Amino acid sequence: MKIPRGTQDILPGDSEKWQLIETKARELCERYQYREIRTPIFEHTDLFQRGVGDTTDIVQKEMYTFTDRGGRSLTLRPEGTAAAVRSFVEHKMFGNPNQPVKLYYIGPMFRYERPQAGRFRQFVQFGVEAMGSADPAIDAEVISLALRLYQELGLKKLKLVINSLGDKISRTAHREALVTHFSPRIGEFCTDCQNRLEKNPMRILDCKADRDHELMRSAPSIIDYLTDDSRNYFNKVTTFLTDMEIEFEVDANLVRGLDYYNHTAFEIMSNAEGFGAITTLCGGGRYNGLVEEIGGPETPGIGFALSVERLIAALEAEGAELPVKEEIDCYLVSLGDEAKDYTVGLLHQLRMAGFSAERDYLDRKIKAQFKAADRVNAKYVAVLGENELKEKKINLKSMADGVQIEVPLESFIEKFKEICR
Amino acid sequence: MKIPRGTQDILPGDSEKWQLIETKARELCERYQYREIRTPIFEHTDLFQRGVGDTTDIVQKEMYTFTDRGGRSLTLRPEGTAAAVRSFVEHKMFGNPNQPVKLYYIGPMFRYERPQAGRFRQFVQFGVEAMGSADPAIDAEVISLALRLYQELGLKKLKLVINSLGDKISRTAHREALVTHFSPRIGEFCTDCQNRLEKNPMRILDCKADRDHELMRSAPSIIDYLTDDSRNYFNKVTTFLTDMEIEFEVDANLVRGLDYYNHTAFEIMSNAEGFGAITTLCGGGRYNGLVEEIGGPETPGIGFALSVERLIAALEAEGAELPVKEEIDCYLVSLGDEAKDYTVGLLHQLRMAGFSAERDYLDRKIKAQFKAADRVNAKYVAVLGENELKEKKINLKSMADGVQIEVPLESFIEKFKEICR
Repeated sequence: MKIPRGTQDILPGDSEKWQLIETKARELCERYQYREIRTPIFEHTDLFQRGVGDTTDIVQKEMYTFTDRGGRSLTLRPEGTAAAVRSFVEHKMFGNPNQPVKLYYIGPMFRYERPQAGRFRQFVQFGVEAMGSADPAIDAEVISLALRLYQELGLKKLKLVINSLGDKISRTAHREALVTHFSPRIGEFCTDCQNRLEKNPMRILDCKADRDHELMRSAPSIIDYLTDDSRNYFNKVTTFLTDMEIEFEVDANLVRGLDYYNHTAFEIMSNAEGFGAITTLCGGGRYNGLVEEIGGPETPGIGFALSVERLIAALEAEGAELPVKEEIDCYLVSLGDEAKDYTVGLLHQLRMAGFSAERDYLDRKIKAQFKAADRVNAKYVAVLGENELKEKKINLKSMADGVQIEVPLESFIEKFKEICR
Repeated sequence: MKIPRGTQDILPGDSEKWQLIETKARELCERYQYREIRTPIFEHTDLFQRGVGDTTDIVQKEMYTFTDRGGRSLTLRPEGTAAAVRSFVEHKMFGNPNQPVKLYYIGPMFRYERPQAGRFRQFVQFGVEAMGSADPAIDAEVISLALRLYQELGLKKLKLVINSLGDKISRTAHREALVTHFSPRIGEFCTDCQNRLEKNPMRILDCKADRDHELMRSAPSIIDYLTDDSRNYFNKVTTFLTDMEIEFEVDANLVRGLDYYNHTAFEIMSNAEGFGAITTLCGGGRYNGLVEEIGGPETPGIGFALSVERLIAALEAEGAELPVKEEIDCYLVSLGDEAKDYTVGLLHQLRMAGFSAERDYLDRKIKAQFKAADRVNAKYVAVLGENELKEKKINLKSMADGVQIEVPLESFIEKFKEICR
């Protein structure tokens, strides 16, 4: 019985790191006033065909699609935005008094990819979506939230890259310039790029295979085709980032593959040595037009998504330790059957009082019990032997300084509360 | 674009309740020293065929099974125990120095059932598994953890029902007695029960359709067939529950459907009026033998699982409110374009200092901004108008008492920290 290929178990010792990252993400979202939405693990397949795009690798090659017992085509969600937008439309959130609607999600996503280091078929994404505002301040806010999460978790080697994809007019003009630029020599490019020339020439700029072709460097830049409105919008975003003392680089080759992306696009990368080929940690951008695509009214939107697996890999690459504590308040050691049974009630009282506490469940000798207490980093060890039980007292030892005291059994919990206060 | 049938979105306003329940579950598990394990959303189908049982309704009728692009038969997990045990075996946790291995999980499960009130095709289970100890004290611990979660979340109308299914010898003797009892008149029972007579006659006792048949009340009780060892074990469990001041009822008809269940079985029910037909909140029991079934060494085990959806329904049935707070520390109101842009940096500083803060992103008039501040329960509203900006100060109003002060812009964050301390 093996775990499915490309997936992983997160075990005690690691799961605490995941909890800490999630807690930090939630806390940050509260500060930024993004609120959690939880959508199902699967959706109707056509949601992703429309919301991610029929021509994308995700939809063409990577989805877990199946037919349920009722004959519906369902797909395990490959990303979070489409479902958030579906929910926004279905629950008519565009009519909420609080606008923009600021949502976040955190949970597993699924893509059938070739498993390799740092890439899993089930992975966890944290993402936010702000729908209902075209204020460039919200673009800056979304970027700063993503960046801040990494920083507060201890990452230092970060690079923020931004670009503007402009509005429809800007992109149409740029598209024509790209076709003119690449067409004469498109035969020198990979077949993917040859297909892209017609469908979405901007994605040629994103090609890994043809990265070093000389036409790449000389390709027309979107920046030169921005309309005045688009340029002003982008200037506002970069000004706000500067107001926030956030450093960034503008990279005119940063594109997002989907048709409905426009204006702000950004990525956060890790510069950490030894991180290897995977350097993009987080990607996001503005998607005015997506809400209409999913059946809602005209609504501007922007968001990002990041992988928690990659975040953890980046922490490891930088040698940043998450402050996960592993210790317990009290371990109960007992000697003799009667004393052992008695600790069941004591243990329960400690836990009811809010303490983390443990005892032996394997009939171990007293020495092995002390060792077990050591392994779980007990702050205090309470020892109940046959004599102690007879005299209705218990021996309490502080493991930090070795100090021992005797406490009457009946006031043990009260005394323990006092000591720990 | 609609959500798949039988699933639900959890939206802001509700998602905070889910967070609170999860936080409480995690905190309780820390006190009890259970640690989180996260297994994939899908597993190889044969894991559930072996770990849940080929003859169960779950495996026969309710699983989301599909073939992936690599030709594997995968199934969305219908419950959490099989995967926890698979992981225990695969990662050889039976060799860990800390025994028993105490795990918890919380996450979505999937069963293709007829959707109805309180029943979803995707639902969230919280569960614990303790593997490696046959100490009856761990049975009592597991039961007390489940009960305590409900109690600390505010439920009062709870009933704990326990039973012993004994060991193999006890169950074999009881099984024969059941066959002898039901065989002569099995034709009067439903076809499910007729099938159960051969495969698993104990499950006849669990039948909803034949609940009122006169042979039900007179059926032989497992309690009368317990071996001395099994009876002693059960007595220990009930004694420990009493030591913990936990009230319970023994119900000899409480059975668990799976073959490998033995000794302790328990359910926690809600007595709340108006809860309707759904009364079982949580079920659990001992499953010595399951670890071997999944390919591991002989290992005793016990656990429970509970549905968070039902927990929330029970809270609603009792009218118990979860203490979810919805307020923010500061809302920034601005007047004029220049002041508005200025608030981007201020807002950022507030959030960097750890405060929850918000501003307008829709170019709203000042009155509408105050209304927005009201709707999000702002504790303070800071107003920056054209004059204030010129004079480099900001007006800070406490919404609790209406007191207003003027603060120099450059010391605003420091002053705000001071006030909130």
